[in-house]
Amino acid sequence: MNPELLLSRIRVVLCRPSHPGNIGAAARAMKTMGLSRLYLVEPKQFPDPEADTRATGAVDVLANATVVRSLGEALAGASFAVALSARQRDIGPVLGAPRETVARLLAEAAEGEVALVFGNETVGLSNEEILHCQAAVTIPTNPDFSSLNLGSAVQVLCYECRMAAFAGLPPTAQLTTPFASPAATNDEVEGLYTHLERVMTDTGFFNPEQPGRLLPKLRRLFGRVRLERDEINILRGILASTQAKTGHGRKN
Amino acid sequence: MNPELLLSRIRVVLCRPSHPGNIGAAARAMKTMGLSRLYLVEPKQFPDPEADTRATGAVDVLANATVVRSLGEALAGASFAVALSARQRDIGPVLGAPRETVARLLAEAAEGEVALVFGNETVGLSNEEILHCQAAVTIPTNPDFSSLNLGSAVQVLCYECRMAAFAGLPPTAQLTTPFASPAATNDEVEGLYTHLERVMTDTGFFNPEQPGRLLPKLRRLFGRVRLERDEINILRGILASTQAKTGHGRKN
Repeated sequence: MNPELLLSRIRVVLCRPSHPGNIGAAARAMKTMGLSRLYLVEPKQFPDPEADTRATGAVDVLANATVVRSLGEALAGASFAVALSARQRDIGPVLGAPRETVARLLAEAAEGEVALVFGNETVGLSNEEILHCQAAVTIPTNPDFSSLNLGSAVQVLCYECRMAAFAGLPPTAQLTTPFASPAATNDEVEGLYTHLERVMTDTGFFNPEQPGRLLPKLRRLFGRVRLERDEINILRGILASTQAKTGHGRKN
Repeated sequence: MNPELLLSRIRVVLCRPSHPGNIGAAARAMKTMGLSRLYLVEPKQFPDPEADTRATGAVDVLANATVVRSLGEALAGASFAVALSARQRDIGPVLGAPRETVARLLAEAAEGEVALVFGNETVGLSNEEILHCQAAVTIPTNPDFSSLNLGSAVQVLCYECRMAAFAGLPPTAQLTTPFASPAATNDEVEGLYTHLERVMTDTGFFNPEQPGRLLPKLRRLFGRVRLERDEINILRGILASTQAKTGHGRKN
């Protein structure tokens, strides 16, 4: 299924958010990853200028947000919901890892509407709210400081959604680039080695009678780099300029 | 290697951040994922109460942050740096995807100090800054709204670092061949560039008054190769031998 369409089926539900700045940050996080459907369950302050500021160019997500009075309302019509939780509850779905849980969310999104559900900044989701969800996810954190910001948590899970939705598609043009100049051929690279060896011999840095491992080491170095033709020309230009300076150029 | 130890070797470098709130958000994002070493290159405002507020319980990361005047200083002693960039530059490392690039970062962290480098909120990293880095990464975003918040970008990449560090797979060996000698540090590589520039200037191959794109091209070449310390020594030995021959050696 079209990745954009999949992402458009994911609701982000914030339950009782305290800080309007976090609502704005969540909207921005969603939009950067191609999600757009924000649900707010009893936000403390909304709309609010601080939300708009933090949303920057994602104010349309705020403008289109749906404000409701319960999680049940936010999930109306959705067939699968994942709760974010920092800890396993006695009762409720088993906490999964982000990547696996998001993969499942997207598989469900192919069938219908789905949701990612986030709790209040301080107290998280209630046990009752978690039980509205079919799955739960935790974002692994430093055990000594697990205080993930709400906007950041939304960012991480929306990022995983985008990565999963576009997985398997050929990477976009910006992820692979052609060489700036054509790759050097084997004989061009050999020409560089010969030239380098001559200069090193002329300066006395290399002694052909006691070669040691110098030449293999240089081959190992330049062999790793996948030289381009232009680069061969630059390197040989540098070598030729030292030869001209030392009067060895004519030997070339 | 112990995942916490690996994470402790990752520096987060923010270049010229404009908003102190983002510095605080970055510190919090880092600490939730177990990273602690923040470097700030010419921050517009720091320290600042807004940074402390947004950091919440991660004010220790701010208190221990290192403020420097150039990216080169921030990378001193590090052997591998990844630049975050929204777009491929004409010159500079090929943009990788987050997961693969972070896997490589962690493999390098097993060998020494590494860094994640972030640019200014509005203008990103300069081309010159990107050329200080051996790899580049882009976070896939919605093409219609790619305005990822700086703190969110730090969160996503630190999250990937934690996921990779704890993935249970030994990050080394499979991703990079073991180094024959330790990876060169950033300052050792910079020393090579300085030396090379001096020799090229002495021979007349490089004209500092009309620099063109020669130096960036050489940075691009050697940035790709991930030089080892022994290799730096060999290359500088070759350079010194040409200087001795031309009578320029004493300047060195």
